[in-house]
Amino acid sequence: MASTTTVGKYLTKRLEQAGLKHIFGVPGDYVLDFFDLLEESSMQVIGTCNELNAGYAADAYARLHGIGGLCVTYGVGGFSAYNAIAGAFAERLPVVLISGGPRLTERSDRHLLHHTIGSMNLQHRVFEPITAAAVILKKPEQAPQQIDATLGAGLRRRRPVYIEIPMDLVAQPCIEPGPFEIDTTIPTDLGALAEAVAEAVTLLTAAQNPIILAGIEVHRLRIQDALVALINHSGYAVASTLLAKSVIPESHPQFIGVYKGYLGRETVQRRVEDADLILCLGTLMTDVNLGHGTALVLDIPKMIVANSDKVRIKHHVYDQVSLRDFMVGLTANLPQRAAAPMISAYAEKGGVEKFVPVRDQEITHKRFYQRLQHFLDLNSLLVVDTGDSIFAAADLLLPGKVPCINQSFYMSIGFSVPATLGAKLAAPERRPVTIVGDGAFQMTAQELSTMIRHRQNPVIFLINNDGYTIERALHEGPYNDLHMWQYHRLTEVFNGGWGCQVTTEGELEDALQKAQAEPDTLAFIEVRLDRLDCSEGILRLGQIFKGHTAQK
Amino acid sequence: MASTTTVGKYLTKRLEQAGLKHIFGVPGDYVLDFFDLLEESSMQVIGTCNELNAGYAADAYARLHGIGGLCVTYGVGGFSAYNAIAGAFAERLPVVLISGGPRLTERSDRHLLHHTIGSMNLQHRVFEPITAAAVILKKPEQAPQQIDATLGAGLRRRRPVYIEIPMDLVAQPCIEPGPFEIDTTIPTDLGALAEAVAEAVTLLTAAQNPIILAGIEVHRLRIQDALVALINHSGYAVASTLLAKSVIPESHPQFIGVYKGYLGRETVQRRVEDADLILCLGTLMTDVNLGHGTALVLDIPKMIVANSDKVRIKHHVYDQVSLRDFMVGLTANLPQRAAAPMISAYAEKGGVEKFVPVRDQEITHKRFYQRLQHFLDLNSLLVVDTGDSIFAAADLLLPGKVPCINQSFYMSIGFSVPATLGAKLAAPERRPVTIVGDGAFQMTAQELSTMIRHRQNPVIFLINNDGYTIERALHEGPYNDLHMWQYHRLTEVFNGGWGCQVTTEGELEDALQKAQAEPDTLAFIEVRLDRLDCSEGILRLGQIFKGHTAQK
Repeated sequence: MASTTTVGKYLTKRLEQAGLKHIFGVPGDYVLDFFDLLEESSMQVIGTCNELNAGYAADAYARLHGIGGLCVTYGVGGFSAYNAIAGAFAERLPVVLISGGPRLTERSDRHLLHHTIGSMNLQHRVFEPITAAAVILKKPEQAPQQIDATLGAGLRRRRPVYIEIPMDLVAQPCIEPGPFEIDTTIPTDLGALAEAVAEAVTLLTAAQNPIILAGIEVHRLRIQDALVALINHSGYAVASTLLAKSVIPESHPQFIGVYKGYLGRETVQRRVEDADLILCLGTLMTDVNLGHGTALVLDIPKMIVANSDKVRIKHHVYDQVSLRDFMVGLTANLPQRAAAPMISAYAEKGGVEKFVPVRDQEITHKRFYQRLQHFLDLNSLLVVDTGDSIFAAADLLLPGKVPCINQSFYMSIGFSVPATLGAKLAAPERRPVTIVGDGAFQMTAQELSTMIRHRQNPVIFLINNDGYTIERALHEGPYNDLHMWQYHRLTEVFNGGWGCQVTTEGELEDALQKAQAEPDTLAFIEVRLDRLDCSEGILRLGQIFKGHTAQK
Repeated sequence: MASTTTVGKYLTKRLEQAGLKHIFGVPGDYVLDFFDLLEESSMQVIGTCNELNAGYAADAYARLHGIGGLCVTYGVGGFSAYNAIAGAFAERLPVVLISGGPRLTERSDRHLLHHTIGSMNLQHRVFEPITAAAVILKKPEQAPQQIDATLGAGLRRRRPVYIEIPMDLVAQPCIEPGPFEIDTTIPTDLGALAEAVAEAVTLLTAAQNPIILAGIEVHRLRIQDALVALINHSGYAVASTLLAKSVIPESHPQFIGVYKGYLGRETVQRRVEDADLILCLGTLMTDVNLGHGTALVLDIPKMIVANSDKVRIKHHVYDQVSLRDFMVGLTANLPQRAAAPMISAYAEKGGVEKFVPVRDQEITHKRFYQRLQHFLDLNSLLVVDTGDSIFAAADLLLPGKVPCINQSFYMSIGFSVPATLGAKLAAPERRPVTIVGDGAFQMTAQELSTMIRHRQNPVIFLINNDGYTIERALHEGPYNDLHMWQYHRLTEVFNGGWGCQVTTEGELEDALQKAQAEPDTLAFIEVRLDRLDCSEGILRLGQIFKGHTAQK
């Protein structure tokens, strides 16, 4: 007879086996018994100030660690995290949401239970469309199979999952968990693969100036090595999309920069759009990711688009071809070539450009990013919030294998502060460098305190330009005004780290030196910019957006 | 030919006609054109730090003003507000959620749009189950009728509604709005009414010690006058539920207190549970509202339960009887009687109890609430967050017609700070007195800044007992610990109001005097209590909860 455990312990064991070392969350009475089991497990429970922030932190953790998780109470907890899980679904992150739930025995009572709106299936129902799988555990004998199937679906499809565990099921007996192995390989039809590779090789070999546009799926599927091998072998130039920034080391001599249509550097735009063949590898065809609609000029007839499990060449599709196998096939069949002469992003920008601060000069947007380039080092971890920062930071050249975390498809502002918390736990050897605008910061500011609680050492740049600057550029109105905070003094309220406000290049220099002198301490540097001082990309976007509005 | 306007202007006009003078929200690019129209309207746009807080503020506004509203961008905005709208649905508040949306012409594009997960109907689909009506406006010629029907459903059913307006529909032409009159009367079947009243009168006349248990629907339907007339005429004693606190003036000589089962004062519990007939008027049968499951002792055979549109006597139901008509019918048909001798809440507690501060004595939970009783005045507005505060504050005796805002069915912590913002705008002549625990405060702390921005004058008591005290009482664990903030210094960060920390009765006295001396300024008073110092009700709840857990 199989030895037994409890449903709650089965679930914590599976979460451990799936790789979670930390789990975020907020306790509540429907989930306290399960929180006890989390505390007993090898996972560290990271309490956040609210559930939305737990979701953002788990998302960022999954970006670096391959899987993330959060645990919340029923109704008020799950619903508060909804936006974060939708974001993880959009951007393809396996985030496990565990929710407590009312006792099965109480679900049919005529009494209304707190934290609910009356219907006991609502939470499950609304999470179904934004997860790879969603389940309410109801019978202890079925729970092991349901838990395995749900977690497996999330890991295979790189999407969030939802597991609701009613409070009276936590201690119910079930079988002990065995080994947990999820085959996340995407199956390939060898015939389709051979034909797709052959057609692509023919087109690529005939092309005069092909280019690779590297996308986020390469990161999510953890197949960066296959991409780098293809680049090295083929000699092709490569650009990444905004969402996929950092998917290949940015000092690679064939990396020409981040492509974002009109919003990006003109050299990159021209090189990509003037190519006679564009090989898109794992690219999500989203609006902002490809330059906020400005990239529609990319011609389908000159594109080979390989996504996680299919390849599209011009107007026809090869199904069941995994992205990895396709890249390996190209490397094996393309002629080996040295890289053509090209201006790499490294050569164009980061490797050479010196920065000499002018102490009394007021800091500008442009000069801030020029200086920041030199502050990044091999141990950095870049986290960028949505807004002007996401476009401006795209042109920073990341040293070594420095990862960049942004949310440039879903674009929920406020993501970066909780994301920094999650990212640091997933990559403790790195020091996060976070760039966040004032509007975004006000959304989730309290999570700074959780970083301080756990003695994290990020360097957070709060770009204070007094309002929703990106919206000012798009569409001015009084609703873009914010109440001014003394942002840099929040570290005093939260009892840790240090903060300062800089307005000149000299003050910025001093702050950066202090941050380097105190490598284990959270640094919060409020950079005061002029209200309308923003990136050139955003100014161009504003022109386009206003044109679009005027056209209507 | 009818004169024309635009769909966007039609909607703002209807919102004005429905009574909105303020609308909360956060702008975003899918909704900027509509924000321009809001700014042009007579409504004042109140920008909040995030969308969840906008939802809470609109909910509280609706509690006092009869209707509330918020306007957000698509996806990231609507999803972030989800929990607040679910709360408004549970607690029966007409809150209008306006969401921008992608252009109709873009919805079928193959490109993925930012702030979405790909499916363009998801937001509408998930809001449907938590609203009285939900609509995506798609055709300008249908929009007027859809707007009217949706707003009407919310006002009639006292529930939230969802209106999604795609950005390319805002400026489309449609007919001018005419007068807007929504008949919110609940229809009554006169035969059923007569029979229900006759049966109730017979039972009530025969009862030895009947009691009225007044519920929240009396407030939501704005029929407090009919309730007071019935009480005055019948001479019956009356208790309110927790959720309905303040539904009748608490200095009324027949008001004996707030009923909450074992969690409340024993005199109230005994009087209600020992009654031989309980007349429940507009009471929602929710768990915490009735004493967290401890009130299941209420016997169905000795109850008359009248809700908004039906009356249940013992085990049978009269449909289509409006609560108002039923109360009016009872008043007309019951014999007029003087009140029986009873100990009113006023006599038992607030009217007589003096408070003499002992300056150097550390403040305790019990002494704090005793002192607070004397701080409340006729112009107060009590806002209480979920947690121990909700139980402790229930026994404060509210002077005059002081309203109490709490969320004691849905119980989402963090509600009170944004709710204070909303409540003050709805009742500008009153001064909010807000009680919030440290765990709840950390959820939504940033909205303090919006109160400062609008020069509001609440007196906020932050009860700092270093953790989730209510959960400590229920179920201790390390997850109930919070990071300690210097809460009272947030006013410095937010550039307004003043804050202080008090640990002794003398310090509290000084702070209260300062708050009274500066009636137009926000006061933030952090009250330091011992970690386990909480209300007697919560200690009893902890015992019951642990017993329940042990039974499993």
